[in-house]
Amino acid sequence: MEKINVLDKGHVILQDVMGNDGSIVDAARTSYGAGTRCVRKDEQLIRYLMKHRHTSPFEMCEVKFHIKAPLFVTQQWLRHRTASVNQVSARYSEIKDEFYLPAEWRAQAQNNKQGSEGLVTETPHDALSIDFESAANMAYMVYGNALNNGVARELARIALPGSTYTEFVWKIDLHNLFHFLKLRMDSHAQYEIRVYAEAMAKMVKAKFPISWRAFEDYVLHAKTFSRVEAEYLKKAVSFAKAHGFSFPDEFPDMSKRETGEFKKVLGCETDL
Amino acid sequence: MEKINVLDKGHVILQDVMGNDGSIVDAARTSYGAGTRCVRKDEQLIRYLMKHRHTSPFEMCEVKFHIKAPLFVTQQWLRHRTASVNQVSARYSEIKDEFYLPAEWRAQAQNNKQGSEGLVTETPHDALSIDFESAANMAYMVYGNALNNGVARELARIALPGSTYTEFVWKIDLHNLFHFLKLRMDSHAQYEIRVYAEAMAKMVKAKFPISWRAFEDYVLHAKTFSRVEAEYLKKAVSFAKAHGFSFPDEFPDMSKRETGEFKKVLGCETDL
Amino acid sequence: MEKINVLDKGHVILQDVMGNDGSIVDAARTSYGAGTRCVRKDEQLIRYLMKHRHTSPFEMCEVKFHIKAPLFVTQQWLRHRTASVNQVSARYSEIKDEFYLPAEWRAQAQNNKQGSEGLVTETPHDALSIDFESAANMAYMVYGNALNNGVARELARIALPGSTYTEFVWKIDLHNLFHFLKLRMDSHAQYEIRVYAEAMAKMVKAKFPISWRAFEDYVLHAKTFSRVEAEYLKKAVSFAKAHGFSFPDEFPDMSKRETGEFKKVLGCETDL
Amino acid sequence: MEKINVLDKGHVILQDVMGNDGSIVDAARTSYGAGTRCVRKDEQLIRYLMKHRHTSPFEMCEVKFHIKAPLFVTQQWLRHRTASVNQVSARYSEIKDEFYLPAEWRAQAQNNKQGSEGLVTETPHDALSIDFESAANMAYMVYGNALNNGVARELARIALPGSTYTEFVWKIDLHNLFHFLKLRMDSHAQYEIRVYAEAMAKMVKAKFPISWRAFEDYVLHAKTFSRVEAEYLKKAVSFAKAHGFSFPDEFPDMSKRETGEFKKVLGCETDL
Repeated sequence: MEKINVLDKGHVILQDVMGNDGSIVDAARTSYGAGTRCVRKDEQLIRYLMKHRHTSPFEMCEVKFHIKAPLFVTQQWLRHRTASVNQVSARYSEIKDEFYLPAEWRAQAQNNKQGSEGLVTETPHDALSIDFESAANMAYMVYGNALNNGVARELARIALPGSTYTEFVWKIDLHNLFHFLKLRMDSHAQYEIRVYAEAMAKMVKAKFPISWRAFEDYVLHAKTFSRVEAEYLKKAVSFAKAHGFSFPDEFPDMSKRETGEFKKVLGCETDL
Repeated sequence: MEKINVLDKGHVILQDVMGNDGSIVDAARTSYGAGTRCVRKDEQLIRYLMKHRHTSPFEMCEVKFHIKAPLFVTQQWLRHRTASVNQVSARYSEIKDEFYLPAEWRAQAQNNKQGSEGLVTETPHDALSIDFESAANMAYMVYGNALNNGVARELARIALPGSTYTEFVWKIDLHNLFHFLKLRMDSHAQYEIRVYAEAMAKMVKAKFPISWRAFEDYVLHAKTFSRVEAEYLKKAVSFAKAHGFSFPDEFPDMSKRETGEFKKVLGCETDL
Repeated sequence: MEKINVLDKGHVILQDVMGNDGSIVDAARTSYGAGTRCVRKDEQLIRYLMKHRHTSPFEMCEVKFHIKAPLFVTQQWLRHRTASVNQVSARYSEIKDEFYLPAEWRAQAQNNKQGSEGLVTETPHDALSIDFESAANMAYMVYGNALNNGVARELARIALPGSTYTEFVWKIDLHNLFHFLKLRMDSHAQYEIRVYAEAMAKMVKAKFPISWRAFEDYVLHAKTFSRVEAEYLKKAVSFAKAHGFSFPDEFPDMSKRETGEFKKVLGCETDL
Repeated sequence: MEKINVLDKGHVILQDVMGNDGSIVDAARTSYGAGTRCVRKDEQLIRYLMKHRHTSPFEMCEVKFHIKAPLFVTQQWLRHRTASVNQVSARYSEIKDEFYLPAEWRAQAQNNKQGSEGLVTETPHDALSIDFESAANMAYMVYGNALNNGVARELARIALPGSTYTEFVWKIDLHNLFHFLKLRMDSHAQYEIRVYAEAMAKMVKAKFPISWRAFEDYVLHAKTFSRVEAEYLKKAVSFAKAHGFSFPDEFPDMSKRETGEFKKVLGCETDL
């Protein structure tokens, strides 16, 4: 089983996969009936499905991971409700003394209340690390001492900090995984969950190369513009055209049909 | 209770609503903690949530409809899995002889295998209507005759056509309703489900005016461009700028922050 | 791929499986942490999970079927919202003239408004079959004629009856499949869906033998008694004991712990 | 809005309710068609629905709570995936220094690896409380100090223990709430989540009195017996009958039909 180490003590293990690019095509063709098999090539179909958000064929594939991550990452992670989860229970098992310690301390972002930006400059990073490590150690001592004195595991655990490592099995279908990755690979996602998303992305890319490329082109790196913005874009394109700008006749990775749709959206159907 | 008649014999009734624009704001502010109440106005917050796909506050509202629609519309409708449904059971109750008959007969689209385009010209519409009406009548006669001869309702019903009207109660949260409406108000959705979506849209707009406007601006009338398309748009904008095109300093309905984000996406952060 | 023919023209094909009894155990043990591996045997653990409705480990397995079934069966089937579905689209493809015709005609149940009971005696079954076949044929003629006259497939299909065969790919996790089977293998489920459930059950039993046995013992053939009923059962057991009835010291297929729990529920903890 | 204080610093506030016992009946009757309204009384119908797990009408009602609870309770709580959630974000807002401290320290259960049983006797409870309080205080000092030195909130929070209070809005339909309460009011649920379940139960009982009573009788206090157990129960009942035990002709709160079903399950249809 493929394993990628993440953060200082975490990991992502790809435990199992159901399906491949071909099973997406098969599912889509069933939904479209017989007789179309020769007309479209697989890749075109997958790209068409992704572009037009025909999501159900991507639900036909599943991936199962074993994750080791700090509790505060896990809490955010498990807010996604479309996956199946089995997590190590701190009521049932004694927790090991493994805590996440950032390699460097990021500073509070000024214009984004929920993000970070740059590094802390007010105080040495070593001092911060020592503080957090000490607090984690003290918490673990209190935890261990309580267990030794017969306190129930379900109560003793309340001393443990958000940095404590936990483990879980996480199974999700490919459509919902893409949605998770879109959100968690975003530059506004917290670094500590983004690195897990990137590790999973690498594994998924290898297993579903065609779908992955379609996901990158039509979802991950796509741009959405509001009604107002789209109107101004049309004006700019129209102005550019009037001053001699011309789009190429063909775009790389785009079918004729797609090119036509693109022109239509921009309001210059006959000619770009 | 508000009622809108749809198709020849169907309807949408708004049975119940939970929440309003204010409860969305309240839910979002709980998720953001205290202290932000004075800074942002409600509308700005709702538009921000919609634009950035912070969907959970919209899940805090619910709408419940009573729908009367043909079976073939219902089948498509109930593929949406995020709603609660109670449908009249043809195993339990005798079905009335009510069938949908289109006011006019649309022709098969040539360049869209699953759509229609224009009207049938090969044959008079009256003749088609008589055919469909006759087949429905015969089906209903076979159905009624079977019931009279003691056949179980669960078996007799198999004669009834897709045009048969059925009724159901449908409850869904506002976020998932918006998703449904995005798909079913689309010009590629079949006309017969689109008219139901439009009836519901009218009702929802009246109950959640601010959220509705945000939905229109950032989702319904938004445009998404693929990676390749977005790159060419940037080139066109850049060309237009070099030839004297200038975006206005302020856009209607857009905050300063939004304007900044728009510029950033287009790669002209300092100036448009 | 394994295939079982169902009804007169339908089928169930097992297309793909993810996981086995072992992966359920693995997932459960991850949720229970290390160190328990030697203590319990796999089967005991699976039975414990099933008995106590620890459902998440069973979600770690998936099965994917290709189904061919009449529309009226499919409508009931797809009300289950926890599966992934790709269905042949009658908007996209021309539908074949395949209709379900019951081998015999069941009569309306007298004391169950939504069920059937025994066979029709009022009229010859052949006559009923001819009626339904004729209506289906006429419907298909109207459908085909409409297509020939250029009517859009999305409209022409509304003539087709509930007996029309359709096809779909259906993927579901093992926990939710068990729930589906519990409902659809029940004697109150309509015969026409029950035979599909039984075909799937046979396939699942072969792939997950231990889980299947646990499902049969703790869910499918389990009995639930209301508060009032349970109280009367306790009285009866107590009376029986007082008159010399004794439960065996050991029950087949039950662990010591289970036996203890059983005694406890019956209020005769010390002795049965 | 009704509020119940829970634990040392937490609460449950009932923020909003959609529907009542009547809307459950209405939804069910829509699914059963017209004409049955006079035959059954509302309560009988609700009890019938609950007993036979016709769950969809109960999905037509919603309840929305504002919850204040420690993080370790919240983590368990939010594993339920069928609710909508908005939680205070520790990335966005500074967290207050409020920590849960148990009123007494429960001991590890001996025969249940994940539960507690009785109280700790090895050491004075005051000493344990001082330990946990000190560790929480130190964690909060490290947290506050990090914030003062410019560390991003998203990183500083990793020092905070599981006992830290958080707040969230939680909306769920009545069917799924009943499922949650069944699990979390159980004697094996951890005390700290059970008290929240009990507070919600009290509120729901007042709003849905008929449904609540049905839930208690057919779900909460119902008993499920495995195949093997049910067989032995039948034997015991049969033995008791042979020795003169007789069930009453009528059971309190049970319809004739229910009594008949009960007899049937026990294999003594003609007579108890």
